[in-house]
Amino acid sequence: MAVKRQRGSSSGPEFTRVRRSPKLTVYERSTLHHILDVGTHCHVAHVIDGRPVATPTLHWRIGEHVYWHGSVASRMLKATAVHSQVCLTVTLMDGWVLARSAFNHSANYRSVMCFGTPVEIVAREEKIALIRDFTERLFPGRWERLRPLSNKEINATCVLSLPLTATSAKVRMGPPDDPVRDRAWPVWAGVIPIKERLGRPVPDALSPPNARPPRLPTAARRGG
Amino acid sequence: MAVKRQRGSSSGPEFTRVRRSPKLTVYERSTLHHILDVGTHCHVAHVIDGRPVATPTLHWRIGEHVYWHGSVASRMLKATAVHSQVCLTVTLMDGWVLARSAFNHSANYRSVMCFGTPVEIVAREEKIALIRDFTERLFPGRWERLRPLSNKEINATCVLSLPLTATSAKVRMGPPDDPVRDRAWPVWAGVIPIKERLGRPVPDALSPPNARPPRLPTAARRGG
Repeated sequence: MAVKRQRGSSSGPEFTRVRRSPKLTVYERSTLHHILDVGTHCHVAHVIDGRPVATPTLHWRIGEHVYWHGSVASRMLKATAVHSQVCLTVTLMDGWVLARSAFNHSANYRSVMCFGTPVEIVAREEKIALIRDFTERLFPGRWERLRPLSNKEINATCVLSLPLTATSAKVRMGPPDDPVRDRAWPVWAGVIPIKERLGRPVPDALSPPNARPPRLPTAARRGG
Repeated sequence: MAVKRQRGSSSGPEFTRVRRSPKLTVYERSTLHHILDVGTHCHVAHVIDGRPVATPTLHWRIGEHVYWHGSVASRMLKATAVHSQVCLTVTLMDGWVLARSAFNHSANYRSVMCFGTPVEIVAREEKIALIRDFTERLFPGRWERLRPLSNKEINATCVLSLPLTATSAKVRMGPPDDPVRDRAWPVWAGVIPIKERLGRPVPDALSPPNARPPRLPTAARRGG
């Protein structure tokens, strides 16, 4: 029932199966970009004192780079600031796949892994432009209405950049992939979709009563 | 706008703020367990040839252990089979937090990190019992209806176990946490909830027409 690494080839123990669903293919660039764009968050793996750590954080993509940021005081960003390698992974869970045996249960998902050594964006104007892009991608039109960033805040923010040069996508979609000998087994089999959606915005106590709620991130982020 | 590591203390640059929302507290054991139980998937960080890798996979918890599994042929499981350390992280994204400055934008989330060296479950009966527990937690009552596991399938499945001895939870919830000086800034501020739900089960083409659809994993997994 794991997220299995299966190939689309017809050799090996799967050769008796009818191939009904594409699995774990490496898709074209636009699919890879799309997964990065619609994922609400990522996990960044890094090595701290020889030990692996997977930290959740928010990311955004512009062209052939993925960016993330955080406090300059954070342990994760300190670890990456010394030019060490990371793996940034974005995963979308699309559904539970219920087969006729426990062994063939699976999950429909899309994921992207980005490997490399990030660089910190130090140029002030570039850093501000990137933070602006991040905000605008999520909430179009919001940037101009916000209280502007202070110098202290800009200095306290670390923005990291990773080129999408060593990146792969894995996708599993479609119905269960039971072998032919299992097809007549009398149990319900299929997919239970998992969907993400945005709820109704909840203003805080001091939000101006006549303030217009933000435009929801429909296109750029999943769940709209 | 990162998932910030903020403390609940009132020292430092945050001392002028009214503390309206608890943040990133390490919660009691039951909360930690709950996050592991309702997360649909995890990311396991491990070190392969000195480089970090974050791999998405499915997990389940029983008592004070978390388990995951996969093909014995997978690279991730080979890497952990040599008794190396891992970090298993489960993250639930609960909402976008829109503050009055870009700097104070954030995300509501719950995450758990589990550190340690996993062990492989080799005892046949224990392995079967664990796979059964995994299936039953997701789809109660389904195990007895499935085509039983074959010896070949049992041997091809690697189940890993990690005790919850070095584990921490981080939670951010509630409204934005703007400093007092920003409170009158005339922009909408609040939270856009992110929700996960299960869609209607989709039977595959060979599913018996009169087969009862599975009971949905309402209690054990988020989205029910």
